Amino acid sequence: MNQDKTAALRDAMQAHLDDLTKPRGSLGRLEDCASRMALIQGTVPPRVRRKAVFTLAGDHGVTAEGVSLYPAEVTAQMVHNFMAGGAAINALSKACGFDLYAVDAGVAADFPAWPREGADGKPGFFSMKAVRGSANFAREPALSPAGFQSCLDHGAELAGFAARGGCDIVALGDMGIGNTSSAAALLVAFGFDPELIIDRGTGISDEMLERKRSVILDAVRDRGPFASPTAVAEAFAGPEIATAAGVILGLRGKGIACVLDGFPITAAAAIAWKLDPSVTEFLFAGHLSRVKGHGPVLEAMGLQPLVDLEMRLGEGTGAVIGGFIVELGCRIAGEMASFSRMGVSKAQAEEKDY
Amino acid sequence: MNQDKTAALRDAMQAHLDDLTKPRGSLGRLEDCASRMALIQGTVPPRVRRKAVFTLAGDHGVTAEGVSLYPAEVTAQMVHNFMAGGAAINALSKACGFDLYAVDAGVAADFPAWPREGADGKPGFFSMKAVRGSANFAREPALSPAGFQSCLDHGAELAGFAARGGCDIVALGDMGIGNTSSAAALLVAFGFDPELIIDRGTGISDEMLERKRSVILDAVRDRGPFASPTAVAEAFAGPEIATAAGVILGLRGKGIACVLDGFPITAAAAIAWKLDPSVTEFLFAGHLSRVKGHGPVLEAMGLQPLVDLEMRLGEGTGAVIGGFIVELGCRIAGEMASFSRMGVSKAQAEEKDY
Repeated sequence: MNQDKTAALRDAMQAHLDDLTKPRGSLGRLEDCASRMALIQGTVPPRVRRKAVFTLAGDHGVTAEGVSLYPAEVTAQMVHNFMAGGAAINALSKACGFDLYAVDAGVAADFPAWPREGADGKPGFFSMKAVRGSANFAREPALSPAGFQSCLDHGAELAGFAARGGCDIVALGDMGIGNTSSAAALLVAFGFDPELIIDRGTGISDEMLERKRSVILDAVRDRGPFASPTAVAEAFAGPEIATAAGVILGLRGKGIACVLDGFPITAAAAIAWKLDPSVTEFLFAGHLSRVKGHGPVLEAMGLQPLVDLEMRLGEGTGAVIGGFIVELGCRIAGEMASFSRMGVSKAQAEEKDY
Repeated sequence: MNQDKTAALRDAMQAHLDDLTKPRGSLGRLEDCASRMALIQGTVPPRVRRKAVFTLAGDHGVTAEGVSLYPAEVTAQMVHNFMAGGAAINALSKACGFDLYAVDAGVAADFPAWPREGADGKPGFFSMKAVRGSANFAREPALSPAGFQSCLDHGAELAGFAARGGCDIVALGDMGIGNTSSAAALLVAFGFDPELIIDRGTGISDEMLERKRSVILDAVRDRGPFASPTAVAEAFAGPEIATAAGVILGLRGKGIACVLDGFPITAAAAIAWKLDPSVTEFLFAGHLSRVKGHGPVLEAMGLQPLVDLEMRLGEGTGAVIGGFIVELGCRIAGEMASFSRMGVSKAQAEEKDY
């Protein structure tokens, strides 16, 4: 969008918000969300017709290095749990008004031919298996160039599906045993300080943390130097992280907001951001997770988390809560009465003390 | 509830949460909300059938001292706006699933005989006019003993109404020009540091802040010393604040959670808390408002706000968002599958790194 149009939209949206029957600016970040949505959609006031969350699942070869306490089979088990309606994201997406789609972006297991559109409150399913799990990045690049491109293409396909379905907000979530190691390696290779990024994780022993740290630091040294963000992504990204980056890149120019979840999805956003810094225009940080590296990466991208509920689950659980807050901002902008229509007295100097 | 039963409930709830298909504790404050609700309701898992928000309106004689930028007529105008569906609380209560009731707790204006149960998405209405605005606390006690008692009785009536209606969560909001001055005077009289409590408010000039500060400090000196929390409340509470205190006291023993809004409602909670410290067992701080004194008072009561969206509107807008988060915790507890049922592998040592 050109600068003149952006400035005109911003002014029109501010004037709209300031005529609503409330003291100026008194809805704080809800107003910020509404303003950002107006710029994303190019409309005043913005509207939210439909919201969808893609929970992207993938396996990680690096689990062979013993960096995770959960067995790798849990990734596939959790996909079954999503489809049966029993996971946290099922409850939270329903409560927050998001249609849930589980995506096999590269799980090392086979699934039934579940339909793309769920029924009876069950999620839809996308079979987009770019790989059967990534390779072990401690020994070789996690994804081949063709594998990474395939993930980006799948992500673009999901973005198109959301656009055709009339979604105004897309939330992204992840499920993949070992993916905090993949995310941490990506971010360290992008230049983030390992001390800020590599997290103990709850319940991990000192020895296990030391092992995780050396697996990541050794791999960043061995796989590098990196000629491009794409080379970094191929070296370390699991399939669900690469596909999430593809969704974000695919959403460019579609007038749809994208709400990030925790650490792995934010690492995916960092890939997209390194490839095209303009993506932050339509990104929202749904929440701040308890994973140590999450905050610094959001800050680098200029994103301020909407809530901090001390969560560290993934699946999109933080993204749907944050996306609901974004929707609240749009509802305020679209549903409230205006001073000019209601005959409510404005404050002297348009300000307030109630 | 006796200590044995509390401990048994707490243990049962923790066992329930830890068997859900997620890493232990990974839903952070949502799990805390669910645990608190289990104790409040005496059931595992807790449930949320119905939620209601009471937006209590009242006028304040102290506006004669020029402490507010808005004319006092705005209180009545905003009640009309609530009933017409145009205010922020209309949009947010609907989005967050709360039934909205506007309450004339003591507005200095007459209203139509609106029905108690709203229809077509419009709110219900309670006419509970204890006074036609409080007296000017700079010159005399804001409420007479009979007026204050009448507010408490009305609050108890609202609590009973919520209980009979099957509410599991009651949110409280306020509308009253001048009520941050009433709230600040109450809290200073309760011993809070005036420097932490008396806020500039947005757009207030230095002279106006100085006037507000001296009105409050002079009144606390002139009306005191105070023999009891009731004497403090009579000296400074506006009718909506006193009625809110009555709702909280009336909810004791009913198994219903009460979610606080911003500074004036939190001052009301402080009255209830001074009269009976056990009320904090069923109170939640919906949000942290931008009004300076809000945080210190919540902290003194041991309440941690659920969200911080930099809001300062009142009406219950922060309370319904926080109440929605409490409900999310209950939904997680009530809707998720358990490890024992789903055949999902637990982590070694029951912990995780995904």
